[in-house]
Amino acid sequence: MPTNPQWKLAARPVGLPKRADFSYDEPEAPTPGDGEFTVKTHYISLDPAMRGWMNAGKSYIPGVEIGAVMRAISVGEVVASNHDGFAVGDHVQGVMGVQAYAVTDGSGGITKVDPKLAPLPKYLSVLGMPGMTAYFCLLRVGQPKAGDTVVMSAAAGAVGSVAGQIAKLKGCRVVGIAGGPEKCKYVTDTLGFDACIDYKNDDVAEALKTHCPKGIDVYFDNVGGEILEAVMSRLAQGARIAVCGAISQYNNTDAPRGPANYLSLLVNRARMEGFVVFDWVREYGQAAQEMAGWMAQGKLQSQEDIVEGIDQFPDALLKLFSGDKHGKLMLKV
Amino acid sequence: MPTNPQWKLAARPVGLPKRADFSYDEPEAPTPGDGEFTVKTHYISLDPAMRGWMNAGKSYIPGVEIGAVMRAISVGEVVASNHDGFAVGDHVQGVMGVQAYAVTDGSGGITKVDPKLAPLPKYLSVLGMPGMTAYFCLLRVGQPKAGDTVVMSAAAGAVGSVAGQIAKLKGCRVVGIAGGPEKCKYVTDTLGFDACIDYKNDDVAEALKTHCPKGIDVYFDNVGGEILEAVMSRLAQGARIAVCGAISQYNNTDAPRGPANYLSLLVNRARMEGFVVFDWVREYGQAAQEMAGWMAQGKLQSQEDIVEGIDQFPDALLKLFSGDKHGKLMLKV
Repeated sequence: MPTNPQWKLAARPVGLPKRADFSYDEPEAPTPGDGEFTVKTHYISLDPAMRGWMNAGKSYIPGVEIGAVMRAISVGEVVASNHDGFAVGDHVQGVMGVQAYAVTDGSGGITKVDPKLAPLPKYLSVLGMPGMTAYFCLLRVGQPKAGDTVVMSAAAGAVGSVAGQIAKLKGCRVVGIAGGPEKCKYVTDTLGFDACIDYKNDDVAEALKTHCPKGIDVYFDNVGGEILEAVMSRLAQGARIAVCGAISQYNNTDAPRGPANYLSLLVNRARMEGFVVFDWVREYGQAAQEMAGWMAQGKLQSQEDIVEGIDQFPDALLKLFSGDKHGKLMLKV
Repeated sequence: MPTNPQWKLAARPVGLPKRADFSYDEPEAPTPGDGEFTVKTHYISLDPAMRGWMNAGKSYIPGVEIGAVMRAISVGEVVASNHDGFAVGDHVQGVMGVQAYAVTDGSGGITKVDPKLAPLPKYLSVLGMPGMTAYFCLLRVGQPKAGDTVVMSAAAGAVGSVAGQIAKLKGCRVVGIAGGPEKCKYVTDTLGFDACIDYKNDDVAEALKTHCPKGIDVYFDNVGGEILEAVMSRLAQGARIAVCGAISQYNNTDAPRGPANYLSLLVNRARMEGFVVFDWVREYGQAAQEMAGWMAQGKLQSQEDIVEGIDQFPDALLKLFSGDKHGKLMLKV
């Protein structure tokens, strides 16, 4: 029997997660019961949302229990099956945890993917949760119209890079915000955004003034904090802020920071609205099809940052928060 | 010639407006030019929005210039006219300033009112700007559905009292928040809200838990600050926060306070949206008609707090911020 390398949540992190918040184990690989199948995971997605799942208490889904395998979305191959709907050799995507083998009955949204249509890592990036988040949060909450000025935080990241390209496809002027000249170059030169603000070196408020002379119609917020406040000071009338995440706030140990200038919403008749991707699961198929079409036409680029080895999990996770990554972060098992 | 007692803005207030921020003058009463008419003001409305108008800089309308008559909405009677559309004896409502006589060409939204349909003070309360604010901010931004739990801040005030009664008419459970047991008694016993929380004596967060067991679907925000944060912690999924005002923040000299828990919007897929009543001016007529109907049927109560004498302006204005008033505050000239 092979073993099943896996990472469990050992303690609820305070601030940034650290090595001691997780425990590594290598039990025997599990065997499927009746109506179940075993998936060998090939790639495990590392997402900012995981930080929220480590907390106790009700959020949009329950937190991970202490001692349980850490929750994660993976893509892999069926290697044993007692399930009529999934056969050995099928490739699947879904929540299967930070482990090399997962036994599942297919519930909770395990879906088949086609490795001939796109390489497996794409099913964790542009055709996976980040891509779905980009697509639905931009189009349904942000509601960009041609000619709108769209500001994209974390513009080089897995979600922002896709959302910004979709905004360009819809005829918007798109201004990215990213950390460092290298990422900004990627955002403008490869992704084709109209401009990119380097929040590590530029004065974000000043740069927004320069790049958004008619104000900001749509802000896609992945970060919260000071950047959210700077954007709020430049809203156009009727602006929409799509609250998709707030990575600057996830590891806070103090009370988080709210936008002190939120009354800009009143003055500008603007809207700020929260978004959870799982609400749109019934429409994933249609979105994936449209995005695969854009990819085939070369209109939608994506980049994956693949860290080798499941043993790297705690260190790799920290790259999410330091920004030290290029594109969608994942582990290769 | 009669004189024209009037109050001008002498300085931009820092924090609460004080007597020295205004100057009193008694020039000769003005005479109308070609295409103009003179209105003798009977009642001058005192509104929280006036605090914003005293600031420099762009808001939804320009601030009042230093040395200009302080902007205010009034109701009065035409006493001289060279205007084809307005005759001596007509009663009108509109922006005419803190003064006994105003000359106008009727632009900027001066409209006729019918003193036989309702007493003149009602045209500054339920049939005026506060009533329009209540009607459109609740129905268009808050979008309450029958069975929703609606929380109304400043529930005994000119806007909140009307908005809460409209929410009741639409079949909602309505929980008011007001300052002191007397106001709370008015809110439940006279206005017919389901409950009222006394923010001066109750623990608002605890009381919201008790009175909104299924969470809050609509929050009508007139106040901002701590109450906004307490409400944000109790949002139901898909909640709407209508940002109509933030009286707790208007006199701040420090940076205002943003809702630290705004990520509750994300978790609850909730929306926070700003509102400016002037955007709905084309629909005022229809709203006034519907509200006058409710008043005639005894389903819509309103209370006016009338301070005698235009000389009382600076002191009367402060009652807006201390909460020391009962219903819509106005001056009788």
